[in-house]
Amino acid sequence: MSFDAVWWDGDAVGYVDQRLLPHALEKKRAEDVDAVVAAIATLAVRGAPCIGAFGAYGVALAHARATSAGAFAADAARIREARPTAVNLAWAVDRVLAAGEGAYLDEALAIHAEQRAVDRALCEFGAALMPESGSVLTHCNTGPLATGGDGTALGVIVAAHRRGKRVHVYVDETRPLLQGARLTTFELAAAGVPATLIVDGAAAATMRAKNVAAVIVGADRIARNGDTANKIGTYQVAIAAAHHGIPFYVAAPRSTIDFSLATGEGIHIEERAAGEVRAFAGAAAAPDGVDVYNPAFDVTPGHLIAGIVTEYGVARPPYAESLPDLQTRPALGVLERLRAAGGAP
Amino acid sequence: MSFDAVWWDGDAVGYVDQRLLPHALEKKRAEDVDAVVAAIATLAVRGAPCIGAFGAYGVALAHARATSAGAFAADAARIREARPTAVNLAWAVDRVLAAGEGAYLDEALAIHAEQRAVDRALCEFGAALMPESGSVLTHCNTGPLATGGDGTALGVIVAAHRRGKRVHVYVDETRPLLQGARLTTFELAAAGVPATLIVDGAAAATMRAKNVAAVIVGADRIARNGDTANKIGTYQVAIAAAHHGIPFYVAAPRSTIDFSLATGEGIHIEERAAGEVRAFAGAAAAPDGVDVYNPAFDVTPGHLIAGIVTEYGVARPPYAESLPDLQTRPALGVLERLRAAGGAP
Repeated sequence: MSFDAVWWDGDAVGYVDQRLLPHALEKKRAEDVDAVVAAIATLAVRGAPCIGAFGAYGVALAHARATSAGAFAADAARIREARPTAVNLAWAVDRVLAAGEGAYLDEALAIHAEQRAVDRALCEFGAALMPESGSVLTHCNTGPLATGGDGTALGVIVAAHRRGKRVHVYVDETRPLLQGARLTTFELAAAGVPATLIVDGAAAATMRAKNVAAVIVGADRIARNGDTANKIGTYQVAIAAAHHGIPFYVAAPRSTIDFSLATGEGIHIEERAAGEVRAFAGAAAAPDGVDVYNPAFDVTPGHLIAGIVTEYGVARPPYAESLPDLQTRPALGVLERLRAAGGAP
Repeated sequence: MSFDAVWWDGDAVGYVDQRLLPHALEKKRAEDVDAVVAAIATLAVRGAPCIGAFGAYGVALAHARATSAGAFAADAARIREARPTAVNLAWAVDRVLAAGEGAYLDEALAIHAEQRAVDRALCEFGAALMPESGSVLTHCNTGPLATGGDGTALGVIVAAHRRGKRVHVYVDETRPLLQGARLTTFELAAAGVPATLIVDGAAAATMRAKNVAAVIVGADRIARNGDTANKIGTYQVAIAAAHHGIPFYVAAPRSTIDFSLATGEGIHIEERAAGEVRAFAGAAAAPDGVDVYNPAFDVTPGHLIAGIVTEYGVARPPYAESLPDLQTRPALGVLERLRAAGGAP
């Protein structure tokens, strides 16, 4: 991609308004905390790692704009809670706050830079799991737009393509907000990876008809036992993959693992407005006033997941053992890990 | 419902243009064979049994308009092939043709009247399978709009509601053409049955979160072993139901069973235009030109189906034994069967 999803813009937080893609690539500036919170809440900026970097910059902005320590603390809390499910946002806000006055922007820039390095390492580890030649299926959007780096699951697929693997990607459109249709197809075209769009309901039929060899998705929060919250529809895809004996992988940075949670039952699932389901882009589909259940995420049990790809390598079941082991690894050394995976000079 | 989906309109075939629902209830007249074929191909008229009745009327219209026996035969063939997957259309056209000159319209009217009686019987048998109180899930639209009678799967749910069962229906929106969002929610509201709309990807999460007690769907073609072609997404719902131990039922008239097919592998699956997926309710969603795989149907293996509800009762596995047995039953006697099921005076 020739653009960043989020960036520090001198005296504001820059971002691409992802709601307008693929029709328009519009760069915007969040110039105050209200704009930062609104960009996250409306999904103008989305994707768990990308929200983390954006929120980190937001804290730096909040400090620059704050008239008192109390106002700053309140603003940081508002950013931290702009969306509840992804762990990365709270993690990034807390880390910036812990850096202390005078270091907020430096810490946000460091978080973003580290995420880019983490993505590169993660993508190299994941690329080894992709077939030499064959179909893979993904759900939602987990490319550069979702992380502000190379991406997670989609980054893995692109890395496999760049290694010369002949992968063809089936992309779930991902209702209600169509991140697959709007963003993933756009990013795959930009990367030159052959891709085919399907409706979410066609995933199982596509696995059977097109001999899908692997499924890979991102994550918004992962519990210690591997239970993974990700975009609504992920759980169904995982069940269908298991039914067909297809390995189902999750790709996410370590910061997505919530080591405080033993299982996915503790993950708060955001429910979003009915209007997202009743209509799309202003076009009404359902009768006015029809009742809607619109969870933004679902939890895929760890036992349906063949591997969790992180910047430290691929964690395998049983996750209750392999994931806590990651918590003890040093945060640095990403480049060393990348070299070990064969993906860096 | 206070209106019919299709009817003989004196010198044309009347129909409700289902593409405009739920925003407008527009009655139209197909005044020649081109209009009949177009209404079927564009899904203005849809639902396997409804297409059957409409096609039957279409043959009567074709005969009234034909200038030669050859032109009539060609027109009947065009109607017969307007959509390939549902067996009912070919079955109804063949039956009208077999009735012979002078009897075409009478035969079409008889087919439609029989379908109404068949629906009533089928719905009573199916209602007994629904929970006394609880959630059920359905996919696509299988109500009066789909059959020209009481409906199949949705008719079963409405019949259960009328018997006093407290069912709450979760409705898959059913991309790409949103028959669930547009038509099923509309019909359930008209029948006074509580219903909640979900995106297709949320079906598995809803089964788990809302304790779904049963799933019931319609069918476009059923093979002798129970393999069932139905709207794309059905197979995925069936897999998810099996994963959760929820019984998955199919409701369809005997005319939907293609006794010439041993298994579902012989069912031709219609692939429809990419534009249906690239856009949502008229709003462009994906980049122009993105490749699309858009099968209109998928095949659910018989082993995932707990029962097939017909006007003769509920066929149970093994279907290779229970379905062929239906073929030998007399076509008449529907009312007797209905009384046996306790649903008629």
